[in-house]
Amino acid sequence: MNVYSCLEQVRENQPLVHHLTNWVTIFDCAQVVKSFGASPVMAHAIEEVADMASIASALVLNIGTLTPEFIESMKSAALAANKKGIPVVLDVCGAGATKLRDDMCFKLLDEAKISIIKGNASEIARIAGEHVTTKGVDAGAVDTDLKLLAASLAKARDAVVVITGKEDIVTDGNRFIMVKNGHEVMTHVVGTGCMAASVIGTFAGAAPQNLVESAAAGLFCFEIAAEIAVKNGAGPGTFSSKLFDAIYLLDKKQIDEMLRVN
Amino acid sequence: MNVYSCLEQVRENQPLVHHLTNWVTIFDCAQVVKSFGASPVMAHAIEEVADMASIASALVLNIGTLTPEFIESMKSAALAANKKGIPVVLDVCGAGATKLRDDMCFKLLDEAKISIIKGNASEIARIAGEHVTTKGVDAGAVDTDLKLLAASLAKARDAVVVITGKEDIVTDGNRFIMVKNGHEVMTHVVGTGCMAASVIGTFAGAAPQNLVESAAAGLFCFEIAAEIAVKNGAGPGTFSSKLFDAIYLLDKKQIDEMLRVN
Amino acid sequence: MNVYSCLEQVRENQPLVHHLTNWVTIFDCAQVVKSFGASPVMAHAIEEVADMASIASALVLNIGTLTPEFIESMKSAALAANKKGIPVVLDVCGAGATKLRDDMCFKLLDEAKISIIKGNASEIARIAGEHVTTKGVDAGAVDTDLKLLAASLAKARDAVVVITGKEDIVTDGNRFIMVKNGHEVMTHVVGTGCMAASVIGTFAGAAPQNLVESAAAGLFCFEIAAEIAVKNGAGPGTFSSKLFDAIYLLDKKQIDEMLRVN
Repeated sequence: MNVYSCLEQVRENQPLVHHLTNWVTIFDCAQVVKSFGASPVMAHAIEEVADMASIASALVLNIGTLTPEFIESMKSAALAANKKGIPVVLDVCGAGATKLRDDMCFKLLDEAKISIIKGNASEIARIAGEHVTTKGVDAGAVDTDLKLLAASLAKARDAVVVITGKEDIVTDGNRFIMVKNGHEVMTHVVGTGCMAASVIGTFAGAAPQNLVESAAAGLFCFEIAAEIAVKNGAGPGTFSSKLFDAIYLLDKKQIDEMLRVN
Repeated sequence: MNVYSCLEQVRENQPLVHHLTNWVTIFDCAQVVKSFGASPVMAHAIEEVADMASIASALVLNIGTLTPEFIESMKSAALAANKKGIPVVLDVCGAGATKLRDDMCFKLLDEAKISIIKGNASEIARIAGEHVTTKGVDAGAVDTDLKLLAASLAKARDAVVVITGKEDIVTDGNRFIMVKNGHEVMTHVVGTGCMAASVIGTFAGAAPQNLVESAAAGLFCFEIAAEIAVKNGAGPGTFSSKLFDAIYLLDKKQIDEMLRVN
Repeated sequence: MNVYSCLEQVRENQPLVHHLTNWVTIFDCAQVVKSFGASPVMAHAIEEVADMASIASALVLNIGTLTPEFIESMKSAALAANKKGIPVVLDVCGAGATKLRDDMCFKLLDEAKISIIKGNASEIARIAGEHVTTKGVDAGAVDTDLKLLAASLAKARDAVVVITGKEDIVTDGNRFIMVKNGHEVMTHVVGTGCMAASVIGTFAGAAPQNLVESAAAGLFCFEIAAEIAVKNGAGPGTFSSKLFDAIYLLDKKQIDEMLRVN
């Protein structure tokens, strides 16, 4: 795979990335997409989501502050995205914390075609059927081999699965890409997980032919920029703004030098 | 017009600026108002919007993440603002992207008195009746003379019209002020358009006698501060925080030296 | 009281702090909790709030952008928190600005057990029964002795009361702790009041045995970090990000040297 070539496609195609996301990190999700040179749009009214998805290049669904009505809008948007044939990313934010979150994730997975399922270890474990608990939106302990778990869910749902963590796993059940960039400070920043899903959606929208590669390329770029932000002095509070600056300026030389691949 | 005098009125009168706005940039809209020395308040429950508008000096409506219920609240707030005689700014965010957005803008314009209509080129073109498409909330191509378009809409709706872009156009259909400050980096920052509407509302609330001048003065101050932020090293991520610092410290000397007027 | 010991308990216990809060400062509320080493979760659907509160260590309610439905969710979450015996903080944001806000605060106070009531001078005065007006969410003038007011409300509601301002008052009606740290620039930053409530919830969740002390300890840490942020060059726009960095790095030496207690 060629990470920089994927980044070039994002900057050239400038995909419109339609989000139905949570109210906590909605700005950061929009800004991360914009910093990569793409166009974010956030729209959740059931009266317009199908129209908006129909002019978009990718759809990102994040259940961080879900309600049942919001899930109905997500379903409508996802069906429109399916009809148009654009990638749909589902961030199963907080799955394993409450029954509502589990139920709503299963509903979306059952009633629409989700292209990429993304979560932390305990969220993905819960969606794969394990009995684990998520601490709100922070990962809980998982006793299973994560690569096997991801592959099993990928096959069961015919989707690419991304488990974020110290090392991210990207798989379609057969091929695996491990993303080993990133920095520990990200665990102290609200929104890094949500932004990762938006980045995956952006790269998937720009290069939908190979979703394992485009998802992984997005994560590599995001996490290399994170390392640059930390080099530039970022703490947990100044992280995101320095990250966006670094993403905007990210170049081939930085990627070539910093990429940590399996 | 005297831009600095308008800024002094904002800092002295400290207008309460009531917003019904979107969930993406709601913090930035509040902080930009606060950085100018005014008081932002965000309230959208239909049970309280008329009460809140009645103690405010200006009302800012932004349809970025609208729902039909939200538009009902906007209408109620606008009618209370009309009754009190305070300026009402409508940011037609995303008009031209979906039918819902167009319909809801027309509804608000037909059923309440909007003092200032603000949007990018394709948004305003759509509201003026052109057949154009907005790329989510980013401007699409418009083939019309923008000054004519703005003037025509201003006359049709008896309102001040603001088209933001590389050069902003402010007109009531007769008088034109072109705002030529600002910086290219703003196009890579989520929320600059929304903040511009909040700034216009703040200045309109502090100096409602001449809305063309107060709207333009607000934009000049906002965009001069933006240039200062970039001089202070802002990239797309660090922009808004440095912008707020610059707004807070903005003085007469900076305005006199940096103002780029037609 | 030992402020640093409370901070250590937060970092060690890493309480899950469930919020139902406003859409303006929701990110800052989450990030301030995370910067202290705790876990924020924001969830408001009535279908899940009781489940989420049941796995949490504290509940923070903030009515900044309330609706009547949202208050129903708050009530459900508060009753679950009461059942579990975890502290419930209510930020009476904007009480005294509209009838809806007053009514909803009284409803929550009457129908659930609130452990800590927090607001600025005019908000608390209104909840204590005074006829005052809040300027949106910014404090209006209050002609009463604030310590007496706080103590009277504390006794009437059997709760700890916190009035934020130049000096914060923390009281259960008998004991008073005055928090004299902080910096004037905080009055120009959107969200400092909301963040204060989240910090109080975080410390109360980690050290619920003595809510006067844990609430005060949280405010001391928050405001000492604020002073450090200003020393590090923060203006109103760069404040919050530098504040989060300072909170993350806050140590015993800084607290010992900077604490300004009565």
